[in-house]
Amino acid sequence: MIDYDQFLSRAAEQMKESAIRKMGTVLAQSQDIISFAPGYPAPETFPWADFAAITAELLSGADGSVLQYGPTRGFKPLLETITGIMASRGVATSLDRLLITTGSQQGLDLVARVLLDPGDVVLVELPTYTGAITAFRNVQASMVGVRQEGDGVDLEALDDTWQRLQREGRRVRMLYVVPNFQNPTGLLVGLGKRLRLLEWAERRNVLIVEDDPYRELYFEDSASEADVRPIRADDATARVVYLSSFSKTLAPGYRVAWIDAPAPLAAKFEMAKQAEDLCTGGLDQRVIYEACRRGVLERQIPLLRQHYQAKRDVMIDALVREFNGSVTWPAPKGGFFLWATLPDRIDGDAMIARAVERGVIYVAGEAFFVDGTGRNIIRLSFSKPGHETIREGVRRLAATVREELAASEALVR
Amino acid sequence: MIDYDQFLSRAAEQMKESAIRKMGTVLAQSQDIISFAPGYPAPETFPWADFAAITAELLSGADGSVLQYGPTRGFKPLLETITGIMASRGVATSLDRLLITTGSQQGLDLVARVLLDPGDVVLVELPTYTGAITAFRNVQASMVGVRQEGDGVDLEALDDTWQRLQREGRRVRMLYVVPNFQNPTGLLVGLGKRLRLLEWAERRNVLIVEDDPYRELYFEDSASEADVRPIRADDATARVVYLSSFSKTLAPGYRVAWIDAPAPLAAKFEMAKQAEDLCTGGLDQRVIYEACRRGVLERQIPLLRQHYQAKRDVMIDALVREFNGSVTWPAPKGGFFLWATLPDRIDGDAMIARAVERGVIYVAGEAFFVDGTGRNIIRLSFSKPGHETIREGVRRLAATVREELAASEALVR
Repeated sequence: MIDYDQFLSRAAEQMKESAIRKMGTVLAQSQDIISFAPGYPAPETFPWADFAAITAELLSGADGSVLQYGPTRGFKPLLETITGIMASRGVATSLDRLLITTGSQQGLDLVARVLLDPGDVVLVELPTYTGAITAFRNVQASMVGVRQEGDGVDLEALDDTWQRLQREGRRVRMLYVVPNFQNPTGLLVGLGKRLRLLEWAERRNVLIVEDDPYRELYFEDSASEADVRPIRADDATARVVYLSSFSKTLAPGYRVAWIDAPAPLAAKFEMAKQAEDLCTGGLDQRVIYEACRRGVLERQIPLLRQHYQAKRDVMIDALVREFNGSVTWPAPKGGFFLWATLPDRIDGDAMIARAVERGVIYVAGEAFFVDGTGRNIIRLSFSKPGHETIREGVRRLAATVREELAASEALVR
Repeated sequence: MIDYDQFLSRAAEQMKESAIRKMGTVLAQSQDIISFAPGYPAPETFPWADFAAITAELLSGADGSVLQYGPTRGFKPLLETITGIMASRGVATSLDRLLITTGSQQGLDLVARVLLDPGDVVLVELPTYTGAITAFRNVQASMVGVRQEGDGVDLEALDDTWQRLQREGRRVRMLYVVPNFQNPTGLLVGLGKRLRLLEWAERRNVLIVEDDPYRELYFEDSASEADVRPIRADDATARVVYLSSFSKTLAPGYRVAWIDAPAPLAAKFEMAKQAEDLCTGGLDQRVIYEACRRGVLERQIPLLRQHYQAKRDVMIDALVREFNGSVTWPAPKGGFFLWATLPDRIDGDAMIARAVERGVIYVAGEAFFVDGTGRNIIRLSFSKPGHETIREGVRRLAATVREELAASEALVR
């Protein structure tokens, strides 16, 4: 038997399985488990009939290029459509700045490969999105966390961290932020803070990577279009690399997302993408394009806002009822996630075995913290399960936590 | 204006646009050009009606997971189908060895990231596939070429090269080969040589990366099933990483391919893929799965063999007629490509401008040589254009070469 470790690259030695993906595997193995783990959109919201009609037309065979290889940059009419979407978000862009990616995960990976050498520092929020952690780790970058306040990253801590790293001779390349309904916390970065982040990046000569998959999904009872203005919209000096996606608004099964970046960087992302997958699926891109052109996306968005807001309400009601104040969370104003702090004695990761027994899963908070904290926090996705399933899942979770507390008390005695 | 070069990783500094992809861009800019450049399959051979029927069923909405995120390893029924496909190729495999990739290009990229550190050596054929060159270059690996004979890489040169590198203290990690109808040469590696390559890899403790997208497309007048037996089929010591794809047999617009590798490596490829794109498109995988299950793939393959064989014949006839012996090529026994050596005074790359003027394009051979040779060789893809277009394209090419020769003679005088 060959020892394959001898053949691994240094990057591969560091690669780990993502905590979220691992939960997906647990889920796939049991039908009976209620999952608050992966941030899956609700498939009953997908515009199935529209997709079916569009696809039937595209697959008539009249246009052979539909199933052919395509340009690495992406399907041009879709790129043009995205310039319009960006304009509606307050961002003036152009085709030389845009690139279609195979999901935003590919966007993060391209960012990592083009902008980071081993040992380079990326500043990230505490906590931050695990998919970004994976992408940055896979190029052997070093992630340094900055704590968040209620309206986003703490600016003083951010600059202190930068100065400390500077003194240590370490090169800070970028700040990675998810300003709208962050995965995992659901937090919304304040508008004033967005501008100050830009000023800071300018002063410290750092790039900002703005990951924005959830912005359309604000909840109308607590946020508005004005609140989700991209940092990129005020990026006068072109320091922002902006990522967004159709996965949360149309469907993730079509792997279609985009990067908007300064043209010289977009050109490099394109070269990196050539090696990664030549091009994003041609049919997928055309379906998304047609869904935009025919107004499907526009019709979906208000429905999705209501759909996910209602689920958030159901989850919060259930948490209030079942936990009686022993669990806290920042109220999500949009997105898919509720970030629940459990009693201090609970270890979210250690509790997973018991939760699976009880028939519920979540993602333990630790996976989102690059500094190893977050032990007693868990991420609950309310996006996919139905109302009754959410209620039952929260009941199971409460029972799990009660048992875990009882067990830990027994241990103390 | 920011100088973005300061932000580029060392890998990004080395990234270049692929010659083939560049030709795709030239092509997209003009309708009038006959393209022998990209190796595109012929869209009129795609089973459009089958795809349409399958997709209509899948998009009924009855199964929400069709458009959901899926497991990184791939859609399990498709993976199981692939174990059957591998068995039909003489390869016993299992689910822990398999991974779906977003096209074989992603497979090459995962291989590069998991198995190569900057400076590590990959041995490649002279010439070799540009997509592999791009993937290896993007991890800053060093490619060293080994010359080919009519039946594949020269074994003596291979070992001499290995020994020289060994003396220089350089670490040879793998040999990359395309044994069936290689892109770009169309060459078929002999069966005896396949076994000797395995013995050599064992003796020198090197992995073999076997890239096999064209094997189903052998031409029945000059090759048979026995001739395309994968190296992997005789891989008793598990040194082969095998890549194959549905892009050439069903359609490339569905980005669905696979890797078969020793389980510990497959696990690492999966982790690398998590960061690259989370998962390959779910709908795409299900369409391919259904096309296999319903016998569409099986029906397609003999038709494709005839289709491409006929086009090869048309191209060879036209070359014989138009060039009158001044151009030579190894007769392709399968695949998409004809590898044409032009008169010695011709520089294929320099001639492109004149060819575009004349309304024909190809890929200059240099792009496929990691040692900078191949100046007077060009790759002609006969796979996509129709018969009359092939004839007209070869006429234009002959006129281009005549003009180029006349111009160079004028220069000499």
